Amino acid sequence: MSQLQDAKAGIITEEIQSVSLDEGIPPERIRKLVTNGQVVILKNNVRAGLKPVGVGKSFRVKVNANIGTSPDCVNIEEEIEKGNAAVKYGADTIMDLSIGGNLDKIRSQILSLPVPIGTVPIYQAVVESRKREDISAITEDHIFKIIEKQAKSGVDFMTIHSGITRRVVNEMQNQDRITGIVSRGGSFLAHWMVENELENPFYSNFHEILDIAREYDVTLSLGDALRPGSIHDSTDRAQVQELIILGELIEEARKEDVQCIVEGPGHMRMNEIEANIILEKKICKGAPFYVLGPIVTDIAPGYDHITSAIGGAIAAMHGADFLCYVTPAEHLALPTVDDVRDGVIASKIAAHAADLTNQIDIELDNEMAKARVDLNWADQFRLCIDPNKAREFRSRRTPKTHNACTMCGEFCSMRILKESKK
Amino acid sequence: MSQLQDAKAGIITEEIQSVSLDEGIPPERIRKLVTNGQVVILKNNVRAGLKPVGVGKSFRVKVNANIGTSPDCVNIEEEIEKGNAAVKYGADTIMDLSIGGNLDKIRSQILSLPVPIGTVPIYQAVVESRKREDISAITEDHIFKIIEKQAKSGVDFMTIHSGITRRVVNEMQNQDRITGIVSRGGSFLAHWMVENELENPFYSNFHEILDIAREYDVTLSLGDALRPGSIHDSTDRAQVQELIILGELIEEARKEDVQCIVEGPGHMRMNEIEANIILEKKICKGAPFYVLGPIVTDIAPGYDHITSAIGGAIAAMHGADFLCYVTPAEHLALPTVDDVRDGVIASKIAAHAADLTNQIDIELDNEMAKARVDLNWADQFRLCIDPNKAREFRSRRTPKTHNACTMCGEFCSMRILKESKK
Repeated sequence: MSQLQDAKAGIITEEIQSVSLDEGIPPERIRKLVTNGQVVILKNNVRAGLKPVGVGKSFRVKVNANIGTSPDCVNIEEEIEKGNAAVKYGADTIMDLSIGGNLDKIRSQILSLPVPIGTVPIYQAVVESRKREDISAITEDHIFKIIEKQAKSGVDFMTIHSGITRRVVNEMQNQDRITGIVSRGGSFLAHWMVENELENPFYSNFHEILDIAREYDVTLSLGDALRPGSIHDSTDRAQVQELIILGELIEEARKEDVQCIVEGPGHMRMNEIEANIILEKKICKGAPFYVLGPIVTDIAPGYDHITSAIGGAIAAMHGADFLCYVTPAEHLALPTVDDVRDGVIASKIAAHAADLTNQIDIELDNEMAKARVDLNWADQFRLCIDPNKAREFRSRRTPKTHNACTMCGEFCSMRILKESKK
Repeated sequence: MSQLQDAKAGIITEEIQSVSLDEGIPPERIRKLVTNGQVVILKNNVRAGLKPVGVGKSFRVKVNANIGTSPDCVNIEEEIEKGNAAVKYGADTIMDLSIGGNLDKIRSQILSLPVPIGTVPIYQAVVESRKREDISAITEDHIFKIIEKQAKSGVDFMTIHSGITRRVVNEMQNQDRITGIVSRGGSFLAHWMVENELENPFYSNFHEILDIAREYDVTLSLGDALRPGSIHDSTDRAQVQELIILGELIEEARKEDVQCIVEGPGHMRMNEIEANIILEKKICKGAPFYVLGPIVTDIAPGYDHITSAIGGAIAAMHGADFLCYVTPAEHLALPTVDDVRDGVIASKIAAHAADLTNQIDIELDNEMAKARVDLNWADQFRLCIDPNKAREFRSRRTPKTHNACTMCGEFCSMRILKESKK
């Protein structure tokens, strides 16, 4: 039984009980949110010991970290180290986006991490075919076998680019996009469709995918193949056309008891973000929204964890449920372990800042404020999103004669006010 | 003559012409904006060679970097190095917040930097008095002599905490603030007022300050002594009461031909930022708004350049004109040169992201997008906010056999699409 089947049947599953404790929301309310598709519970039913993660309405905003090999860098140990760092700094889920090396082997190792794992199955189809032939020669049968194999291996959620139909590709070609298609999966599928003059198999055979997803309770993450790759390209007809198709497919999936989330942009100006969230929530009937960024300017490579923290925070404030991190290496190179840490922390800051606007976890900030007034450094470090980093800054320049900091020293406002109170 | 006197007289000054070229806005329109106080032009009239900087409506969002010594760290060379780094990475102005060492000597060196320089004169009064006695023993005469000395030495803008009256302090004491007063200048003045049972001299003698400011064309930055120092304390009655008094003083200053900007919070939830900008713009009759942060969560010390980039970007999107940077060392230690660079870049990202929402400098992002499609790395680096950082990421993991990056390699969407186009 999938979570959605159980929820529709009125059953409070163990997974709902676990999520209820995490979020502080009554189980029955969560069951209703699962039933109407506003919440998903990430957990493949073959991963018996996995703690499930809930994503969606009224929950904490969640953060995903992408890891995985590339053709230029195949080092499984390093990827696992990245996965551990991501979990340590608070990533709620990990996506294995490997496209180099033995993908089955890598995935089985990444599935040992203690969080829900996502994949993009088309990558494996492409990587395995590319060794022999052009992407366009991939067979539909091969793609579906990979989806099934990955589901069976325990993958909890999968990006499926079902919305990039031939109509959508045509629409895109009529737009004046600068960066065209920047989604890897989207570019593979567009290439396949154009070369073969065939419809997107993820669209035309969507119900086959639903059958697999239901069997393993894999949550489908409906990919936005046409997410804008530059400020210039955002919120155009092609992007919105694809979203409309995803909205149609969400309803199909819900009928078939398959949990779904929707992926979203991308690069865009800050003042378009709210409209994009409203659009997704309306068109996709409240499905959880999983955004990559949004990156709010194109000119800051090396700092895209910051450009996406800005966009992600705004998106989450307006209702995005799930933030895919972006590391400072984005647009430049495969990230290192340190880049992964920086990316996770920036996204966690964005997620928590948005949670505060919903009165979630506000007591953490209040405790920190009290520790600051008291110049209680032990408590300040304990409450930090990254205690090591905070300690490092303070230890670099620790005052010798007082317990304030080296910014203000004896002129610390907290100290001055204490004098007044006396 | 001050800029405001000239503007009222219908004169297009050299400074307006210079700002007109920078901003791409006709001089006559700028003159009108100066006349009605929606724009200020930062330049003390004794700094003959200084390129003026315009701040306010329809201009690019500006970024200020704070530097300066503290009692624990007096190293003028390092502060000058920080100033140079700030200017190199795009800070439009520098504030000298020194509170350690020989303040006149330090200020005169900082005034050699090629941007408008701001100060907080009460600091010097306190630092000089503190050596001998308690803050409460400072005389009003001493304070005004320092303001005049600093104006004469060339300071272009000064933070003056005129809004923290006894009424405002009382209002604050009736609020349930956790962090009370976190503004250094505010805590000095509150202490002085409470101990002496006297009104704030910056309020009661505001017209004396206006006389000095007009003579040197120093722009007054009306300080928010009660800016919230924690998420918990934001947008309370005390903060808004002080803002109302600043609004009254703005009108006094305009009558006396003195340019003014208003300082704003602070720590606050993201969903309060827009309301704070609207409040300032209405209550202070469109005066340029200079915000510190806003910092959108208290629990990320070590990463407050990111928490404030999020808040600053949102503030600037809604109309804040001037962002005071926050470095990653905030709340922990006096910043290093590297911290200054990180702080400036984070604020510049926020400022530029907000400019994009006003269609300003959009061509930079479009050029970057084109360079990405073309895999033209030289252009990408040239267009970066920090070319060195971008080069460093790419050089750490440069692909050997292709011109994409090590993230996707041969599976780069830009490459796949080029294949399709053939």
